Amino acid sequence: MAARFDVVGIGSAIVDILSRTDDAFLLANGMVKGTMALTNAEQAKAIYARMSQAIEVSGGSAANTMAGIASLGGKPAFIGKVGADKLGEIFAHEITTIGVEFNGGEKRPTKLPTATCLILVTPDGQRTMNTFLGACTELGPADIDAKLIADAEVTYIEGYQWDTPLAKEAIRKACQAAKGAGRKVALSLSDPFVVDRHREDLFTLIREEVDILFGNEEEVFSLYQSKDLASAVASMREAKILACMTRSAKGVIVFDGQSTIAVEAAPVPKVVDTTGAGDLFAAGFLYGFTHGRDLTACARIGSLAAGEVIGHMGARPEVSLRDLLAKQGL
Amino acid sequence: MAARFDVVGIGSAIVDILSRTDDAFLLANGMVKGTMALTNAEQAKAIYARMSQAIEVSGGSAANTMAGIASLGGKPAFIGKVGADKLGEIFAHEITTIGVEFNGGEKRPTKLPTATCLILVTPDGQRTMNTFLGACTELGPADIDAKLIADAEVTYIEGYQWDTPLAKEAIRKACQAAKGAGRKVALSLSDPFVVDRHREDLFTLIREEVDILFGNEEEVFSLYQSKDLASAVASMREAKILACMTRSAKGVIVFDGQSTIAVEAAPVPKVVDTTGAGDLFAAGFLYGFTHGRDLTACARIGSLAAGEVIGHMGARPEVSLRDLLAKQGL
Repeated sequence: MAARFDVVGIGSAIVDILSRTDDAFLLANGMVKGTMALTNAEQAKAIYARMSQAIEVSGGSAANTMAGIASLGGKPAFIGKVGADKLGEIFAHEITTIGVEFNGGEKRPTKLPTATCLILVTPDGQRTMNTFLGACTELGPADIDAKLIADAEVTYIEGYQWDTPLAKEAIRKACQAAKGAGRKVALSLSDPFVVDRHREDLFTLIREEVDILFGNEEEVFSLYQSKDLASAVASMREAKILACMTRSAKGVIVFDGQSTIAVEAAPVPKVVDTTGAGDLFAAGFLYGFTHGRDLTACARIGSLAAGEVIGHMGARPEVSLRDLLAKQGL
Repeated sequence: MAARFDVVGIGSAIVDILSRTDDAFLLANGMVKGTMALTNAEQAKAIYARMSQAIEVSGGSAANTMAGIASLGGKPAFIGKVGADKLGEIFAHEITTIGVEFNGGEKRPTKLPTATCLILVTPDGQRTMNTFLGACTELGPADIDAKLIADAEVTYIEGYQWDTPLAKEAIRKACQAAKGAGRKVALSLSDPFVVDRHREDLFTLIREEVDILFGNEEEVFSLYQSKDLASAVASMREAKILACMTRSAKGVIVFDGQSTIAVEAAPVPKVVDTTGAGDLFAAGFLYGFTHGRDLTACARIGSLAAGEVIGHMGARPEVSLRDLLAKQGL
C-alpha cells in the first residue's frame, strides 16, 4: 500500500542553544569535544551561566532529519514530547510550519520543561553538546500511534533514545508496528558514548529490526570496538543490512550487504558549525531512498544536505534543499 | 572625571526571531522591505504563524550596539526592560555574560512579555522587521539612573524610543543627566518611518542635546526630506555636529562640522543578513571615539564590525571583534 509519509522520526524534541567558544572552555568544564553529555537541570543551569552570546534554534537529531526531508520536498512526520512552555511552542510551531506532521497534530505537552541542548561550537566548527532532556523523558509507548507508523515507508529512530528507559518501550512498539505493516526501520547511532552505554541493546535491535543503519566513523568504531577502519568496515559489511558510515570531509561509505560504494563529501566553502551534519546526511539519504533513487544518488543527496547545514550555525537547513538539489542536477 | 563606562545605551530589550523568506512573502503580508513596523500581540501572532524555520537571538538596536562595544573590548552599559519570562531570562543572561552592565545589575522585569522582533530575511540579505514591544513600553524615567548616565562618556539613544511615550521622558531625563555631567549624547535615527513619525521631536533633540548622530541614507533623507544625496549631505553638514551617514556597500560619510571624511565599506565575502549592520557600525565608531581614535579610524572600526555581523544570521557578533580588529591592524 502506498505510504502517506516517506519517513516518521521518533526522537527528542529539543531546542538548541548554540554559542561559540574555544577549546579551553571545553577543557575547563570537563567536556569531550564532538560528543553529547546528558545533564540534569542544575548542571544545565551552571553550564548556561558560563556560556556567552548564543542563538536558539529548534534541534533534536531525528527532528533535524525530518526537517531536512521536508526541505527536500519529502513527506516526513515526527513523534516527540515538548513542555507547555515558550520553547515548546517554538519547537512545535517550527516543525509544523516547515512541513513535518508533528505528533499526528496533537501537541501532547508534558509538565516537564521542553528539552534544551547547550551546544558549544569551537573555532574548528566542531560541536560539543550538553543535553537536558526534560519533557523528552516522558516519551513512551502511549505516544506511538501504530497507524502513523504503518503509514510511513521508513521509521527512523535516534540511538539517543536508549538513554531514556520509557522510550525504549516506545521504540519496541514502533518497530513491531513498522514490521507488521511491511515497512522499514532505520537507526542512527547518534554518539559514540551512547553506543558504548547501550552496545548490546543496539546489537540486538540491529540484528532483529534494523534495515538501514547510519553512523559516523567514531560511532561505528565504538559499536564494533574496532581499532582501525578496515576492521570497522568489515564488521559493518557483515551486518548484511544497508549501512552508511559517514566520515566528515572524507565522504561516506555505503554498504548494501553485497557491494560497497564510496561517495565524496560535497564541497563546503567554510565549515562554520558541524551541528546536524549526520542528521542532514540521513535526511538526504532517506529522501533519495524513499524516492526510488540508487544508492550513489542517495549518498550524494545526503552529502549535499549535510554540506548546507555545516555552512552556518544551527542544525536546520537555512535554504530550500529542494532548490539546492535542483541546482546540482540531482 | 574618568568615566566608568564608555557608552550607556538606552533602548528596547528585544529577542529577535529571524527567518528566511522571499519577496513574495513580504508583498503578501504588506511589509515594506528594510523597515520596521510595530505590531500588537495579535498581529505578531498572525505573522509568526506564517513564518517558517527560525532562529532566536538577542537583539534590540542599542543593545546590539552595546554588545558590539563589549566584543571590541570596551565598557558598555545598557538600560532596557524585559518581562519575567524565558525570553527575558535569555536576554538578560546574554547581555550580562558578554560584558554589558545591564540595568545596574537589577533585572527590573515587568508583567508584560519580553519584546520580540519577527525578522524576515530575503535572499538579498535585507531584513524586514515586525516588532512587538511588550515589556519595552514600560521603560520610563524611573529606569534612568542619573549616576550611571553620568558615569558613561557617551549616552546612546535609539530613535525607536520615540514610538513609546514614556520612553521619551526617560530620554529627556537621561540627556539632562549626561549634559549635567559634561558627557556626550549620541542618537541613532533607527528607521526612515520612525524619523517620519517624529521628525520635529528629533530635530529638537538633535539641536538641543545630540553631539553624535548616526543614520543610514534613507533615514537621513527622511529626516531632511531630501530628494538627493547632495542636499542630504548639505543638510547633515549644516547640523554642525559629528554625524555619520552609512551607505551600505558604498561605505560611510562622516561630518565633524568642518571636514567631511568618506570611508569605504569593509569587504564582506557574502551578505547573509543585514540585521544589525547600523547597530554594529555605531558600536565600532563609538568604541573608537571613546578610545581617542581619529574619525577615520572610528569609521573603519565601525565598518569592520558591521561587516562581521552581516556575514551571518542575527545582529550580535559571532566572533570576538577585538581579535578581528587586531588582525586588521586597527
